[in-house]
Amino acid sequence: MPAQHQPLIGILGGMGPQAGLDLASKVASETRAEIDQLHIPLVLFSVGDSIPDRTEFLLGHSETNPSAAIAHQFKKMAELGVSVAAMACNTAHAAPIFDSVKRKLARAGVDPTILHLIDETVAFIRSRYPELSKVGILGTRGTYQCELYDGPLRNAGLEPILPDPEIRNGTIHEAIFDPVSGIKSRSNPVSREARNRVFEAVEHLRGKGAELIVLGCTELPLAITNSHIDGVQLIDPTLIMARALIRATYPERLKP
Amino acid sequence: MPAQHQPLIGILGGMGPQAGLDLASKVASETRAEIDQLHIPLVLFSVGDSIPDRTEFLLGHSETNPSAAIAHQFKKMAELGVSVAAMACNTAHAAPIFDSVKRKLARAGVDPTILHLIDETVAFIRSRYPELSKVGILGTRGTYQCELYDGPLRNAGLEPILPDPEIRNGTIHEAIFDPVSGIKSRSNPVSREARNRVFEAVEHLRGKGAELIVLGCTELPLAITNSHIDGVQLIDPTLIMARALIRATYPERLKP
Repeated sequence: MPAQHQPLIGILGGMGPQAGLDLASKVASETRAEIDQLHIPLVLFSVGDSIPDRTEFLLGHSETNPSAAIAHQFKKMAELGVSVAAMACNTAHAAPIFDSVKRKLARAGVDPTILHLIDETVAFIRSRYPELSKVGILGTRGTYQCELYDGPLRNAGLEPILPDPEIRNGTIHEAIFDPVSGIKSRSNPVSREARNRVFEAVEHLRGKGAELIVLGCTELPLAITNSHIDGVQLIDPTLIMARALIRATYPERLKP
Repeated sequence: MPAQHQPLIGILGGMGPQAGLDLASKVASETRAEIDQLHIPLVLFSVGDSIPDRTEFLLGHSETNPSAAIAHQFKKMAELGVSVAAMACNTAHAAPIFDSVKRKLARAGVDPTILHLIDETVAFIRSRYPELSKVGILGTRGTYQCELYDGPLRNAGLEPILPDPEIRNGTIHEAIFDPVSGIKSRSNPVSREARNRVFEAVEHLRGKGAELIVLGCTELPLAITNSHIDGVQLIDPTLIMARALIRATYPERLKP
C-alpha cells in the first residue's frame, strides 16, 4: 500500500488499545514530517478481543497461550506487506509467548522482522546511561514471574531492582488492572488512584536504590508522562520502540 | 481476525496520522470495557504517503484525485474482514473524492459500509441541539470550495455560517498547514500559534452569529479539546464518528 517497494510498519496493539495507539502516535511524533505524505506508513491492528490475557497465561491461571492469536495477526500483517513489526505489550515478550509466536511464524513460512521491546530498551539504557547500573522495573505480575527484564539487564552488566511482592501484587497490579480505577479500565484520562499507585511504586524502587526506572508495561507511560520523578530517570519502552521502528525503516526521517 | 463472525471496524487514517489515531482513541474511550478483550476490534491504516493532498486536488492545484489510493486501501481492509469503515478526514468527504471512492469500490465489487463524517455530524447537531440553527464551520479551503457542510446543513434546516475569505485563506489555513507552526506539522503537542489562530477563527464565527461551531477538519480537535469557548458549543466530528462506529458494530458497548 505505501509507494511501491517502500517499507511498511505493523503495530500489533490492542493489549490494551490505548497502548497500541500510544506507540503509533510516538512513531508520528518522532518523525520529521511537515506534511501528511512524509509520515511513515503503518498499519495498526487493535484486535485485542481475540488475544487472551498474557499475564493470566504466564501465571498459569489460563492454559491458552496468546501466541496463536498473535501469530495469526502477524501473518495477516505480512500479507498486507508489513516488513517490520512490533507488539505494544511488554508481557507478550516473555519467552513462553514470544518464542512460540516466532516458531509458529517460521512454521508458516512467514518471517517479518519483529523488533523486541525488551532488547531495544536494554540496549538503549546501556548506550544512553553508561554510568548508571541499577535499573528498577515496573511491570505486570507476568513480567516478574518470567523475569522478563532480569536476564537481558544482567547480560548487559546492569542490575535489576525489583519491587517487593506486596508492591508487585498489590500497588502495581491494581494500578494496571483494577476494574474501576486501573489504567486498562480508564486510560483516557487515567484515574488519580492509578497515577498515585504508580508514583508509590516508583518511590519504593527509588528507596531500593534504583537509578533508572523502566515503565515496563505499555499502560504505564499512559499514566506517567514525566521523564523524571525526584531525580530518578524514567524510561519509556514505547518511545524507544517508536524510534527503533523509524530507524529500521526510514532512518533519515528520525528526529534527533 | 476478531472472534468469528464479529464485526471489524476499519479506520482510514494518515490524513494526518494523529487525526486517524484520535478517531481510534475515541472509539476506545467511548467503549464500555474494563479489560482488553472487551474492546472493539479495529484496524487502522495510516498510510498517508500514498494519498495525495485532498485540498490541493479540490482547489484544482493537482489533477490526482486521492480517491484511487483511498479506494485501494478500503479494498485491502475488506480483504481483512472489515465490515464498517470510516475516514478520519473531513475534506476527503467532498463529493468529487467521496463519490469517486464509492464508484471505484462498486466497480471492484467491494461494498463495506463507509460511514459519512459530514452526514453523521449534521444528524447529531439536529437531534442534540434542536433549538439552535446557526452553525459555524471551521475547515480547510477544500472544505469551503466544495461547500462540504453547506448542503447537508441546509437540508436539515440549519444555517451554515462561513468565515470571511481572509480568515479561510489566512488564519484557518495557516493553523492547519503552516509548515512550521501548523497542526499537520506539529500536532503533539500543538503549537501556541496554531491554537491561537483557531481561537481567533472561533471568535470570528461567533461574531457572525454562530451558535455552534463545527471543528470541520480532523486536525482541529487535536488543537482544541474544549467543549465550549465563550458560551459557543464546539462540535467534534471525530467524537461523533467514534460513537457512530460503535453504534454500527457493538451498540451495547457504547458509553451513555
